[in-house]
Amino acid sequence: MSLLVQKYGGTSVGTIERIKQVAEKVCRAKRAGSEIVVVVSAMAGETNRLVSLAHEISEIPDEREKDVLLASGEQVSVALLSLALKELGQPARSFLGHQVRIETDSAYGRARIRNIDSTKIVESLKNGEVVVIAGFQGVDEDDNITTLGRGGSDTSAVALAAFLNADACEIYTDVEGVFTTDPAICPEARKLARVSYDEMIELASTGAKVLEIRSVEFAKKFSVPVHVRSTFTNVEGTWVVKEEESMDDVLVSGVSYDQNEAKITLQRVPDRPGLAAQIFSPIAAAHIIVDMIIQNASEDGTTDLTFTVPKADYKKALAIVEKAAAAVKSKGVKVDTDIAKISVVGVGMRTHAGVAAKMFEVLAREGINIEMISTSEIKISVVIDAKYTELAVRVLHDAFIGKRENV
Amino acid sequence: MSLLVQKYGGTSVGTIERIKQVAEKVCRAKRAGSEIVVVVSAMAGETNRLVSLAHEISEIPDEREKDVLLASGEQVSVALLSLALKELGQPARSFLGHQVRIETDSAYGRARIRNIDSTKIVESLKNGEVVVIAGFQGVDEDDNITTLGRGGSDTSAVALAAFLNADACEIYTDVEGVFTTDPAICPEARKLARVSYDEMIELASTGAKVLEIRSVEFAKKFSVPVHVRSTFTNVEGTWVVKEEESMDDVLVSGVSYDQNEAKITLQRVPDRPGLAAQIFSPIAAAHIIVDMIIQNASEDGTTDLTFTVPKADYKKALAIVEKAAAAVKSKGVKVDTDIAKISVVGVGMRTHAGVAAKMFEVLAREGINIEMISTSEIKISVVIDAKYTELAVRVLHDAFIGKRENV
Repeated sequence: MSLLVQKYGGTSVGTIERIKQVAEKVCRAKRAGSEIVVVVSAMAGETNRLVSLAHEISEIPDEREKDVLLASGEQVSVALLSLALKELGQPARSFLGHQVRIETDSAYGRARIRNIDSTKIVESLKNGEVVVIAGFQGVDEDDNITTLGRGGSDTSAVALAAFLNADACEIYTDVEGVFTTDPAICPEARKLARVSYDEMIELASTGAKVLEIRSVEFAKKFSVPVHVRSTFTNVEGTWVVKEEESMDDVLVSGVSYDQNEAKITLQRVPDRPGLAAQIFSPIAAAHIIVDMIIQNASEDGTTDLTFTVPKADYKKALAIVEKAAAAVKSKGVKVDTDIAKISVVGVGMRTHAGVAAKMFEVLAREGINIEMISTSEIKISVVIDAKYTELAVRVLHDAFIGKRENV
Repeated sequence: MSLLVQKYGGTSVGTIERIKQVAEKVCRAKRAGSEIVVVVSAMAGETNRLVSLAHEISEIPDEREKDVLLASGEQVSVALLSLALKELGQPARSFLGHQVRIETDSAYGRARIRNIDSTKIVESLKNGEVVVIAGFQGVDEDDNITTLGRGGSDTSAVALAAFLNADACEIYTDVEGVFTTDPAICPEARKLARVSYDEMIELASTGAKVLEIRSVEFAKKFSVPVHVRSTFTNVEGTWVVKEEESMDDVLVSGVSYDQNEAKITLQRVPDRPGLAAQIFSPIAAAHIIVDMIIQNASEDGTTDLTFTVPKADYKKALAIVEKAAAAVKSKGVKVDTDIAKISVVGVGMRTHAGVAAKMFEVLAREGINIEMISTSEIKISVVIDAKYTELAVRVLHDAFIGKRENV
């Protein structure tokens, strides 16, 4: 018998009515002959409500206790969904992170899954039950409750699919799949039928919100086929799978954008070995994630060092940089929060030249200035003025994807 | 150093503001030199909210999943209180039922505590932390989440005090202690300074709501001194303790009442051995708790069999009795939901005669008819028409307790 892991997000279980609909959907899949493990998030709005409660008490809440607090949200969902399944006559059993030992490291709020003990899950499936597991949560080796961070339920689902050797992991969400770009700003955007793990990782890391990046990395590592699809329709969504040969034919799979970064520049720093370490070590120590870094040596022996950080962290980063700036004898620090990162992603780039040149041309034609460039084997990202975001996405989508059939 | 277990109920942690006040109270006790273990209930209203969610899905929700659902309420409270303590600079650490292994049997919704592993608690106390433990919840030997039933947090607190060998268990609540009767219907009611375990058990089982009866049984078994007091003042409350000699001097410690029972009568049943078993075995099998039972043989060889059950269960009980009635050839079944049970309780009854006679006289003087009588060594209960409840309580309080000093 096939084994499916299905994950339903907060919107899908946002009300009792929707939980009942999810229960019916699960029952249909079970009747169709699959064994089913369901992973659920907290009801929509619940995690935010709990975070607010914590912040009414403490500006920077203790991370261990915050995880105890947040994990209660998924506890409510698994119980209610199990009740709904039983009400439909479908035997079901809920499990929390500690009950199936979803063991993680101890990094509260952003824990990583290390191991899952599948014994109880397998036993429950053997008894004909649908297994309902709380997403987003685990326990460390000392039984402290941990959470996996934003989108963590996706990771829970893929990890369970991997450890249970499931045939597929279905991610049910409020959109129909992965699109070539954001339909909200580009009406020509279309749903991708298939996309490779690497492309999905690049799309997720450059602004596409449909899947949490860590879950795709997990899926890639364990070759779990992931099917992203809508809770509210029955149409096929997007399959995230191992790279296939035919994918090379497509130069660009998607155009993504991200307006959540800020740019920091140290101006005219005397260039010498160890400079970057002096700047970035204290930033890393403060758990701030640096995305793009650019350094250009000029002829007078000084250099401009520019990098981007999440907007939410830029004040913290700025304070650190300003302190370091004096030590490295920088002439000044500049911040720009009005930027957007636009990326084109496609495995076809590996074998086709000229994508970068075409991208720069298309943007130049619209008079859009490029402030930073960063490339990977299958991605080109540029930083531009935020006000050109929609225009840039549309012209790039038009140039690389257009009205192409069979995406 | 002394060790105190403090329990705060739902009203005491009903808002963020109140949680902060509790944190301050806990800090004061800690600064005064005690080690502190705090047990908390779910925020007021939360358990009811969760129960409603379950009932939106299922008329009779599955008990295992309902316990998973309800246990989330205490999880929120322990996290928030720990955050509030840390915000005041007091190191604190929360634990859920599974983390300190509050091991219970598997009777979902009414589980009994079998064992508590104090290792982590002791370690945390050694580190100078206040330990904050979720009340009301535990796990069975297979790690399924269980809850202890109504008032279960009291039991959690007393059990923890017992297993930790604490100096006292303080139950913080929204009243100032245990009263001689309900002040809402008898203005002369006064707070008791001390009451024995046995008296408290009888008071709790006959309608006094301040302490859950199981918690008092636990306290008695392990000789845990329990101090019932108000969260919102600093005055001494009521100590529930081992019986002391001086307690014998007081005939009646309290007058309690209970309007939550219904009376069922099987009329004119042919009297023969095995009759009671035929009626009460199926009722017990349906988990309905029978309180008072009275059977009077009449001269024609038939008997009237009367008993009381919780009002919430009387329809279920009636269905069972009506089925049995035909088999035992009863002439008819009568139900009365308009009854009240009035009780007087006091260890002094053991050594003093005449309490029952005086009780009947006082009620007769007011024209209150007694429908059923039940007695124990330290308690007399009567069932009367519900409309006389307040009157009966007032005249009995006046007759037995009155304006007596030093209660």
